[in-house]
Amino acid sequence: MRIDSPDNPKVRAWRQLSQHKGRQEAGLFLVEGPHLVEEAIRTGAGVESLLVESGRDISPFIRSSRLPVVEVSARVMKALSETVNNQGLAAICRLPAGEGPTPKAGRFLLLDGIQDPGNVGSMLRTAAAAALDAVVVGVGTADPYSPKVTRASQGAIFRVPMAVGSVEEWLAGLRAAGVRCLAADGATGRDFRELGRLESFGLVIGNEGAGLRPEVLALCDERVRVPMPGGIESLGAPVAAGILLYGLVLGPGNMLDGRQA
Amino acid sequence: MRIDSPDNPKVRAWRQLSQHKGRQEAGLFLVEGPHLVEEAIRTGAGVESLLVESGRDISPFIRSSRLPVVEVSARVMKALSETVNNQGLAAICRLPAGEGPTPKAGRFLLLDGIQDPGNVGSMLRTAAAAALDAVVVGVGTADPYSPKVTRASQGAIFRVPMAVGSVEEWLAGLRAAGVRCLAADGATGRDFRELGRLESFGLVIGNEGAGLRPEVLALCDERVRVPMPGGIESLGAPVAAGILLYGLVLGPGNMLDGRQA
Repeated sequence: MRIDSPDNPKVRAWRQLSQHKGRQEAGLFLVEGPHLVEEAIRTGAGVESLLVESGRDISPFIRSSRLPVVEVSARVMKALSETVNNQGLAAICRLPAGEGPTPKAGRFLLLDGIQDPGNVGSMLRTAAAAALDAVVVGVGTADPYSPKVTRASQGAIFRVPMAVGSVEEWLAGLRAAGVRCLAADGATGRDFRELGRLESFGLVIGNEGAGLRPEVLALCDERVRVPMPGGIESLGAPVAAGILLYGLVLGPGNMLDGRQA
Repeated sequence: MRIDSPDNPKVRAWRQLSQHKGRQEAGLFLVEGPHLVEEAIRTGAGVESLLVESGRDISPFIRSSRLPVVEVSARVMKALSETVNNQGLAAICRLPAGEGPTPKAGRFLLLDGIQDPGNVGSMLRTAAAAALDAVVVGVGTADPYSPKVTRASQGAIFRVPMAVGSVEEWLAGLRAAGVRCLAADGATGRDFRELGRLESFGLVIGNEGAGLRPEVLALCDERVRVPMPGGIESLGAPVAAGILLYGLVLGPGNMLDGRQA
């Protein structure tokens, strides 16, 4: 199949995938560029079709997937792409169906109202790298299937299970499963090194500006913080989440050196 | 003093501070917003004058500094600001004079060709929080006194000593001082947990896309990496730097759990 016109009905339909509503109605999302497309294929995500700009090569790996290819004109690719220098390749993927992850013993990151797509993508990347059991994408958090988050995640959306839902319900479920629930806080709370390595935890990161909601704090066992001896007020959500997650997964617990922020 | 017109010669001169050349020629830089202005005052940075938009209040803390205030119109503030919603307050600061930090025993972060201002700002923030001795801002790295970096640093530029210079010369100097020089690498190198807590180190972070230059690698003792059991290729410079710096400063060295990426 080959599509030349941006007015083609299929192209019009794919353009709706840049919006949350369009993705939900179609049950599809679009990822751009060789790295994301290869990650989608490699991880067995449900790729419906590949969109390849006329005259562009695709890698032997992508070719060997034998997925349906739609050849599109440069104008069509430009209409679908959110980047200035699109790389002439995209994939239409199916949103995960079925129940998805549920609360249980394990290691979980919960994002509560993280608005910046770059921050959400970065934290998904860290969660995937640290091999967490799932990331809970709470209400008010940027949609992980939006173009900006998929790009910032560098494909981590395909590597870590995600649950879109209520942070409060998840916290209640985790606590019922005996999982220790921690709220990341820049100012107060226990130095994360005191916790050491935890086989099970739920770590909540709150909104970049407003911080943690009282309803969420009420459901957590305690607050946890990264010590900041240098007199800085906060580290930014992705860096703080990275240090905390790696600390809880790898466990620097017994290395306290007496320096307190 | 009060300035109403964006064409005023002083305003024209301040506008040059948005560019590297203009800052170097004037020996000045400009920071925006109450948080950065308060950090400048609190840390004893050389504030030449405060620019306050007509009708805006300033905090008692800023008022108590007794620094010279220039009242400016909303049009002038808009002409000087890089943000859409400027907060009606800025400060003209003097670039640090004198020699600045030099290589010696201690804890150092070296940025080699980090182009994204947000990444530079974020890493300055982490370096300040971890109370490093200095950050070396190498050639090709975004200017730490540019508006985007000062903003992303959230004032960390006032909290951590910075040296703008050659990463190679610094590495040579650190090695001569007996400091272990480490190159952050996503793919290969020693698991940072094996290093434990180090009283002295130089950690180099390379360009976001191209990675570490061979000239830099040749001057480092070894490569160091964050383990990524989840199959992700890299974490992004600010998150990787955060985990490595906190690991080396706080030391998770003896907590190896056998899981290798």
